Amino acid sequence: MTETQVTLIQIDNYGPWTVAPEPKREADLQMLQSRLYADLSQLVGHHDGYVFSTRYDNMIAVTNGLDLAEHRRIQDAVRNRYPVTVSLGVATGASPRDAIGEATATLQAAGSAQDGERTEILRGDPLREGGAVQIAHFDVNDATGRYTDELDAFEVFRRIDRGYTTLLEYMYDSHDSLSFFIGGDNVISVTADLDRPAFEEAIDHVAETAGIDLKVGVGRGRTAGDAGMVAKEALERCREHGTRVEIGAGERTEGT
Amino acid sequence: MTETQVTLIQIDNYGPWTVAPEPKREADLQMLQSRLYADLSQLVGHHDGYVFSTRYDNMIAVTNGLDLAEHRRIQDAVRNRYPVTVSLGVATGASPRDAIGEATATLQAAGSAQDGERTEILRGDPLREGGAVQIAHFDVNDATGRYTDELDAFEVFRRIDRGYTTLLEYMYDSHDSLSFFIGGDNVISVTADLDRPAFEEAIDHVAETAGIDLKVGVGRGRTAGDAGMVAKEALERCREHGTRVEIGAGERTEGT
Amino acid sequence: MTETQVTLIQIDNYGPWTVAPEPKREADLQMLQSRLYADLSQLVGHHDGYVFSTRYDNMIAVTNGLDLAEHRRIQDAVRNRYPVTVSLGVATGASPRDAIGEATATLQAAGSAQDGERTEILRGDPLREGGAVQIAHFDVNDATGRYTDELDAFEVFRRIDRGYTTLLEYMYDSHDSLSFFIGGDNVISVTADLDRPAFEEAIDHVAETAGIDLKVGVGRGRTAGDAGMVAKEALERCREHGTRVEIGAGERTEGT
Amino acid sequence: MTETQVTLIQIDNYGPWTVAPEPKREADLQMLQSRLYADLSQLVGHHDGYVFSTRYDNMIAVTNGLDLAEHRRIQDAVRNRYPVTVSLGVATGASPRDAIGEATATLQAAGSAQDGERTEILRGDPLREGGAVQIAHFDVNDATGRYTDELDAFEVFRRIDRGYTTLLEYMYDSHDSLSFFIGGDNVISVTADLDRPAFEEAIDHVAETAGIDLKVGVGRGRTAGDAGMVAKEALERCREHGTRVEIGAGERTEGT
Ligand SMILES: Nc1nc2c(ncn2[C@@H]2O[C@H](COP(=O)(O)OP(=O)(O)OP(=O)(O)O)[C@@H](O)[C@H]2O)c(=O)[nH]1
Ligand SMILES: Nc1nc2c(ncn2[C@@H]2O[C@H](COP(=O)(O)OP(=O)(O)OP(=O)(O)O)[C@@H](O)[C@H]2O)c(=O)[nH]1
Ligand SMILES: Nc1nc2c(ncn2[C@@H]2O[C@H](COP(=O)(O)OP(=O)(O)OP(=O)(O)O)[C@@H](O)[C@H]2O)c(=O)[nH]1
Ligand SMILES: Nc1nc2c(ncn2[C@@H]2O[C@H](COP(=O)(O)OP(=O)(O)OP(=O)(O)O)[C@@H](O)[C@H]2O)c(=O)[nH]1
Ligand SMILES: [Ca+2]
Ligand SMILES: [Ca+2]
Ligand SMILES: [Ca+2]
Ligand SMILES: [Ca+2]
Repeated sequence: MTETQVTLIQIDNYGPWTVAPEPKREADLQMLQSRLYADLSQLVGHHDGYVFSTRYDNMIAVTNGLDLAEHRRIQDAVRNRYPVTVSLGVATGASPRDAIGEATATLQAAGSAQDGERTEILRGDPLREGGAVQIAHFDVNDATGRYTDELDAFEVFRRIDRGYTTLLEYMYDSHDSLSFFIGGDNVISVTADLDRPAFEEAIDHVAETAGIDLKVGVGRGRTAGDAGMVAKEALERCREHGTRVEIGAGERTEGT
Repeated sequence: MTETQVTLIQIDNYGPWTVAPEPKREADLQMLQSRLYADLSQLVGHHDGYVFSTRYDNMIAVTNGLDLAEHRRIQDAVRNRYPVTVSLGVATGASPRDAIGEATATLQAAGSAQDGERTEILRGDPLREGGAVQIAHFDVNDATGRYTDELDAFEVFRRIDRGYTTLLEYMYDSHDSLSFFIGGDNVISVTADLDRPAFEEAIDHVAETAGIDLKVGVGRGRTAGDAGMVAKEALERCREHGTRVEIGAGERTEGT
Repeated sequence: MTETQVTLIQIDNYGPWTVAPEPKREADLQMLQSRLYADLSQLVGHHDGYVFSTRYDNMIAVTNGLDLAEHRRIQDAVRNRYPVTVSLGVATGASPRDAIGEATATLQAAGSAQDGERTEILRGDPLREGGAVQIAHFDVNDATGRYTDELDAFEVFRRIDRGYTTLLEYMYDSHDSLSFFIGGDNVISVTADLDRPAFEEAIDHVAETAGIDLKVGVGRGRTAGDAGMVAKEALERCREHGTRVEIGAGERTEGT
Repeated sequence: MTETQVTLIQIDNYGPWTVAPEPKREADLQMLQSRLYADLSQLVGHHDGYVFSTRYDNMIAVTNGLDLAEHRRIQDAVRNRYPVTVSLGVATGASPRDAIGEATATLQAAGSAQDGERTEILRGDPLREGGAVQIAHFDVNDATGRYTDELDAFEVFRRIDRGYTTLLEYMYDSHDSLSFFIGGDNVISVTADLDRPAFEEAIDHVAETAGIDLKVGVGRGRTAGDAGMVAKEALERCREHGTRVEIGAGERTEGT
C-alpha cells in the first residue's frame, strides 16, 4: 500500500513583495521563480524527492524519506540564497489527495499566506519509516511527428494543455491522484496504488475527451525518485514494445 | 496598430537527450529546464522582451526590439552555458497568432525538432523598426482569501488552471491572442489591439464558465517589457479603484 | 589616452551576515559568493564591462560605457535576487589606480562597509562620453605541458599564484595598473596606455623573479569587453607566431 | 590522526574550448567558471565536503565521506548541466599534501589535461571508512576598520593577497598543509594534526613577514563540513575572548 508524504512549499507573503515599492519587472520575477524552483528541485532531489512547479508561489513536493531536520535545512538554504523565504507543511496519507489536504491545513492553521508575520513555518508529521510512492509518467505518442513538426507552436501547446487538464481532472476525481505537467509532452501523476485497468481507462478517457494518445510507465518505490525512475524505464519499454501501459521493474517482460 | 514580433525557442533534439544513454533523473531535467528558462528570461529581458516557459522544450518569446544579431548572441550564450542548444524562429504579425504561426513554419522548414542534424537554426525577419505590443496582465481577485487560505493547495491549483485554460481558449479563438500562465494567480495575454469591451467580455466569460473572478491591466508599448510594465501599473489601479479593467498609462484616471 | 571607469562593488554589512544568528556553512557562503559574481559578470558584461571577483565581498569592475541608471539597475537586480544588497562607487581616472582610489573614497565617505545603516549606496561620476580602456591578457606558456601534467595540482597552483602576485605588484608599482587572476593560467591587467617595452619588461621581471614564462595580448577599446576581445585575439597571434607581446587589432600582421 | 581525502576536479580539455572556434567573451567564461564552482560547492557540500575554487579549471576538494559512486554522480551532474565535463582523481593521505600529490598522479596517469580523448576519468581510492580532517579558518583582525574603510579597494586586496600568499607558503613548507583564499579576509588551511604552537607560529610568521594580524579557529571532524563548522565556532570564540588561536569544540572554555 502506498503512503505518500507530501510537502506544500509556500513563498511567504509573495504577492506584496512583487509590487512593493512598485511592480517588479516580470522578467525578474520569472527569473526568481524559476531559479528558486531549480534549487528546490536539486535540494529535494538530493534526497530523491520530486518537486513540481505548480503555481510557483505554491509548490507541491513528494518527500518520502525526508524528515523535519532535512526540511529545515532546505528552508535555511532558501533564506540564505534568496530575498524571499518559504513555509513548509508536511503530511502523509494513503492517497496523495489526502496528504496534500492535510499538508495545506497544517500551514493554513499557522496564518494567512499573505500575513507578513507568518514566515518560515515548518509543521507536520513526516513518516517515521517506510511509506511507498507510486509514480505514473504519461507521455504523448509521437508528439514530434504529429504536433511539434506539424502545427504552430501555440496550437501544439494548447493541445498538450488540453490533454493535461483532462488527465488532471480525471485522475483527481477518479483516483485521488495529483498530476503535474513537467514539460514537453509529459505529465507525472502521483497516485495511490492503481492497477493496469485504471491506467488503461485513464488513457481511453483522454483519447476520447481531448483526442490525445498517451502511453504511461508506472513505478513504485520508497521515494519519488526511485518510483519515478522505474516509471521512466517502464515508459521506455512502452516505446520498445509499442505498448500503452507498462508497470513496475519489468523483470517479467525482460524474462520472457 | 500592434505589430508583434514573436520568437519560437526550441531545444534541439531534446527528447532523445533526455533518455540517452538511459533515462535521466527527472529532478535533473527539471533543474536544466528551469535554469535555461531563467537564463532566457534574463537574456531576452535585457532587451525588454518577455519569454514564456510554455512547454519548456518549446518556449515562446515576444521580442519586439531584438534584431537577428541579438538573437544570435542569445543562441551563443545557451551553447556556451548548457549541454543543449536551441533553434530560433522569428516572425512578426498583426496578431500574435499570425506571428507564432509564421515563426513556427520558419523553423519547421529547416527540419524536424528531433533531427540530430538540425541544430542552432536561426531564421526569420525581425521588424526593421517600430512595431507595438499590447500586453494584458490578468489576475484573480482575492486569490489568497478565497483560495490559498481556504482550499487545499492542489484544489486551488486546479481552479487556477481551469480559469487559465478557459481564458487561453477564449482569447485565442475570439482574439487571436496568446495567453500564458506566469505563476501565482496571474496570466499574461499577448494581444492585438483590443479595447475595453473585449476585456470585459473575456472576464465575464471566465466568470461564467469557470467561476473565477478576474481583473486585468492592459498596456501598450514598443517592447513587451514596456507594455507589460504599463499593464502592471494599470492592474495596481484596478486594486486601488476596485475596477475590473484598466487600460494604458492612466493619466486620465490620475488626473481625475 | 585611456580614461578608465572603475566601479567598486561592495556587499553591504556582509561580515555580520555570515555569522548571524550563527556561522553559516562555508559551502553555502561559497555558493552565494560565486553565484553573485556570476550574475554580476553577466549584468555588467551585458554592457561590455568586466567584473573581477577580487575579494568577493569587494569586487572591482571596469565599467566604461555604463551610466548611473545602468548601475542602479544592477543594484536593483541584486536586491531582487539575493538576500544581500550591494553598494556601488564609480569613478574615472587616467590610470586605473587613480580610478579605484576615487571610487573607494566615494563609498567610504558614505560610511563603513559594516554599518548596517549604510546600504545600497550609489555614488560617483561616470564618464559623460568617450573614455578608453587598455586591457592586457597575460597567459603562461605551455602551462599544461610544464605544470598541469607534471606537478601536483597544489604545487601548480602555488606557482601560478606566485607568478600572479609578482605580476600584480610589478604592474601596480611600476604602472598604476590593476591585475586580476581570472582562472587557469590567465591574468588580466587593466592598464593606462602602456607600450610594448613596458610589457616586455613586465614579462622579464616575472621570469626572473618567479620563474614563470608569460606571453601577453594587449587591446584597447571603448569598453572593457572590446579591449579584452582585441587582447584575446592578440594573444592568439602570440600563439601562432611564437611571440611574447602582441598589441592591438593586428591588421599589420594579417596584412603581411 | 588525520587521514584527509582529497579530490582533484579538472575540467576536460578546457583551454582549447575557451578559444574555439574563436576566443569566447571573458564575461561568459567567468560566468561559466563561477556557476560550475557554485554547483560543485553545493554537490560536494551536500555530503559535507569542501571545494576550493583554486585555478577554476583545476579545483581541489576535501571529500572525506564521499565514495566513488557519489563522485560519479557529481560527474554526471556536471555533464548534464554544462557544456564541459570534468575528470576526478581521488586519494587519501596522512597529510593533505600527500593526498593531493597522489590524486594528481592518478589523473595524470590517465593522460594530459588537454587531450581531447581523456574525458570524464574517475580514478582513485576513497577511504573505506573513518578518516578525519583538520580545518583551520584564518581571519584578519579588524579588516574592516584597518583596511576596507581606510585604504583603496585594490590596495586592501593586495595586502590580503600578500598575507594569503605568505600563509600559503608557510603552511605548505612547514606543515604540508593546503591553504585557500575563500573571500573577504578569510583563508582556510586543510592541515594534518597541528597543535596550538604551530598555529601561533604561523600567525607570528605572517605578522612579521607581511604585516597582517590574524586569528584562527581550528576544528577536527569526520568531514570537512564538520571540521569547518567547529573551526568557525572556534573563530567566534577568538572574537569573544580576544584570543588568537582557539581549537576544537570549546566545551572547556564554555565550561569555565
Ligand atoms: N521533463 C521531461 N520531458 C521529457 C522527457 N522525455 C521527453 N521529454 C519531452 O518530451 C518531448 C518529446 O519527446 P519524446 O516524447 O521523446 O518524442 P515523441 O515525438 O513524442 O516520441 P515518442 O514519445 O517516442 O512517441 C521532448 O522535447 C521533451 O521536452 C522526460 O523524461 N522528462
Ligand atoms: N508572476 C507574477 N506573479 C504575481 C505578480 N503579482 C502577484 N503575483 C502572484 O499572485 C499571487 C497572489 O498575489 P495577489 O494577486 O497580490 O493576491 P490576491 O490575494 O489575489 O489579492 P488581489 O489580487 O489584490 O485581490 C502571489 O503569490 C504571486 O504568486 C506578478 O506581478 N507577477
Ligand atoms: N579565464 C580564462 N581562462 C583561460 C582562457 N584561455 C585559457 N584559459 C585557461 O588556461 C588554461 C590553460 O590553457 P592554455 O593557456 O590554452 O594552455 P597552455 O598549455 O598554457 O598552452 P599555451 O598557452 O598555448 O602555451 C585552461 O585550462 C583555462 O583554464 C581564457 O580566455 N580565459
Ligand atoms: N567566506 C567567508 N567569508 C567571511 C566569513 N566571515 C567573514 N567573512 C568575510 O570577511 C569580511 C570581513 O568580515 P569580518 O572578519 O567579520 O570583519 P572584521 O572587520 O575583520 O572584524 P573581526 O574579524 O571581527 O576583527 C566579510 O566582508 C566577509 O567577506 C566566513 O565565514 N566565510
Ligand atoms: Ca512523447
Ligand atoms: Ca490576485
Ligand atoms: Ca597558457
Ligand atoms: Ca576579520
